Amino acid sequence: MTGPRLTSLAQTLPASVPFVGPEAQERTRGAAFAARLGANESVFGPSPKAIEAMQSAASEAWMYADPEAHDLKQALALRHKIAPQNIMVGEGIDGLLGTLVRLIVGRSDTVVTSDGAYPTFNYHVAGFGGALHKVPYQGDFEDPSALFAKAAEINAKLVYIANPDNPMGTQIDGAVLTKALDDLPAGCLLILDEAYIDTAPAGSAPEIAINDPRVIRMRTFSKAYGLAGARVGYALGAPDLIEAFHKVRNHFGMSRISLAGAVAALADQDHLTETLAKIETSRDRIAAIAVAHGLVPIPSATNFVAVDCGQDGAFAARILDGLIAEGIFVRMPFVAPQNRCIRVSCGTDDLMDLFETALPKALNVARG
Amino acid sequence: MTGPRLTSLAQTLPASVPFVGPEAQERTRGAAFAARLGANESVFGPSPKAIEAMQSAASEAWMYADPEAHDLKQALALRHKIAPQNIMVGEGIDGLLGTLVRLIVGRSDTVVTSDGAYPTFNYHVAGFGGALHKVPYQGDFEDPSALFAKAAEINAKLVYIANPDNPMGTQIDGAVLTKALDDLPAGCLLILDEAYIDTAPAGSAPEIAINDPRVIRMRTFSKAYGLAGARVGYALGAPDLIEAFHKVRNHFGMSRISLAGAVAALADQDHLTETLAKIETSRDRIAAIAVAHGLVPIPSATNFVAVDCGQDGAFAARILDGLIAEGIFVRMPFVAPQNRCIRVSCGTDDLMDLFETALPKALNVARG
Repeated sequence: MTGPRLTSLAQTLPASVPFVGPEAQERTRGAAFAARLGANESVFGPSPKAIEAMQSAASEAWMYADPEAHDLKQALALRHKIAPQNIMVGEGIDGLLGTLVRLIVGRSDTVVTSDGAYPTFNYHVAGFGGALHKVPYQGDFEDPSALFAKAAEINAKLVYIANPDNPMGTQIDGAVLTKALDDLPAGCLLILDEAYIDTAPAGSAPEIAINDPRVIRMRTFSKAYGLAGARVGYALGAPDLIEAFHKVRNHFGMSRISLAGAVAALADQDHLTETLAKIETSRDRIAAIAVAHGLVPIPSATNFVAVDCGQDGAFAARILDGLIAEGIFVRMPFVAPQNRCIRVSCGTDDLMDLFETALPKALNVARG
Repeated sequence: MTGPRLTSLAQTLPASVPFVGPEAQERTRGAAFAARLGANESVFGPSPKAIEAMQSAASEAWMYADPEAHDLKQALALRHKIAPQNIMVGEGIDGLLGTLVRLIVGRSDTVVTSDGAYPTFNYHVAGFGGALHKVPYQGDFEDPSALFAKAAEINAKLVYIANPDNPMGTQIDGAVLTKALDDLPAGCLLILDEAYIDTAPAGSAPEIAINDPRVIRMRTFSKAYGLAGARVGYALGAPDLIEAFHKVRNHFGMSRISLAGAVAALADQDHLTETLAKIETSRDRIAAIAVAHGLVPIPSATNFVAVDCGQDGAFAARILDGLIAEGIFVRMPFVAPQNRCIRVSCGTDDLMDLFETALPKALNVARG
């Protein structure tokens, strides 16, 4: 009996996971984490109104969700002062990135990103056979000018920028991005991943006309809105490109419960404001803990802080392992020189206390 | 300013939706449906324990789901007496079909299905540039021998069979399928879509070794388990093929709430048994209503009944429109000769009463 014949591309791809989940780590270590601070989730939780809406929708789960996500798109259109035709809702930014890459990247098509930026984007590019080119960060920042110059050099179809950046947490002023756009080569689409835009200072989001065909923006309910487990992201862009998603997307991929939660979360801007204050407090706390132990926090525009451990990736990995041994789930960048850092998500005072207690122990082990 | 450069394949694809949602129809007609009997959802609902589990999980929605869906896979492995390595969980069968087609079907690769079978499968094949070949139903049944003969003739990489079938509701004995498998050509994978297997008579599921590399089976919580809106399906197959999903899938595509609901639904087999009894009662009721009005119900192994309206597709469409005008959401097959039927999902007595009242009115209009 012979098995299935995978495509030549699929045969070459590794079976991989960009991020091992904390649950898998818990199963391996045989104990739950005391503090879940590694996936940039919002431990502050979603709006209680979103929880209520999801609990109410649970009893309607026998019905498929509206494949057009009409209600959420209407709410988003009002909030962003754009048309529903500028919006595509999907299973998190990860899902939307996959669909977008599929629409644009064929075998050997060229794509540009920063070396050390979002692995899941790279995974999608590889998954459609694209040729990924990387430019270095400029210090701890993504470098739009270098990215666009590389895109022009290699005739790239896509370029990816996350602003604020993950894993470094840094932010580029929107005006800088807008200006840099002048050098985006014709026929190259900029994916502006704004997963963390809600936690960034005013002015971080560039003023780009919603119908500008050069840019598509990605937003999510997973971070500041606290709904990572619900899987609701959305893309904002020109109607032609948004419409193209309907060519290939899984129309019935969204959970009805999740959509109800997202609508309610969006309506509760007071909760978002409260969450942002908690995130700011926690960022300061993480920074203070880092400084107290001789480490250097990198100023963050996100719901996490990258902490520069001052040596190489192996040293940071030892600290990471030490924290995990203490029951503190954190992650670290994959690529040098960013991998001199560990990445700590914001959390409640209790969780920050646990981190504060664990860090010196981890440092002691790491420093031998 | 120029827009993005879509792949040559994406440029040729239409922006489409295999199924327009009832919500869109409600928005168009300006009124809600009185009876939602068109999408083969289970109006009998999921287990109350599944609803409770989802309501409880709603407050944990700030956490991403376990990308390995470990707990659900363990429960499914126990239930099916197989290994977790034989199971892939995904965003409904639709999502799993998309990923599977992506792994196997490249440009111009050949695929076989029945003419009039599941449009979403056809959509995925087109979406990856495959060449879809269709064989006719044999009466109201899919025809494995003809499908496999066509597969051999054109060197197909994939062949699709739904058993029980949608849209006709008919079922092929598992033993017939097992025997037909002898003629499945080498290197051709059979996708056996068993979305409706829970409502089928004993013996409908063929006895195929779980590690047989020739077959992958698709199951879902959307039908008998009543969780369509949660979007949880799973594939059963040989470990190599299951492992291949990890090459391209959206690892974080599942809702945490949905996974919790599926685990609880699976554990409540009493509820499933009760639901199956209700479905059987409703199938009989739909059949009786059809007969009372001179129509011919096709014996069903599913949670819906295809009702043969005795004339052509235009006539059935007029009946469908008449039902929709009366507030009864139903659908009908897309292709002749199946489109002489309307397809009515099972429902509660109240909903059956509404259907019974509306049908003669729709027939009067249709018969002019």
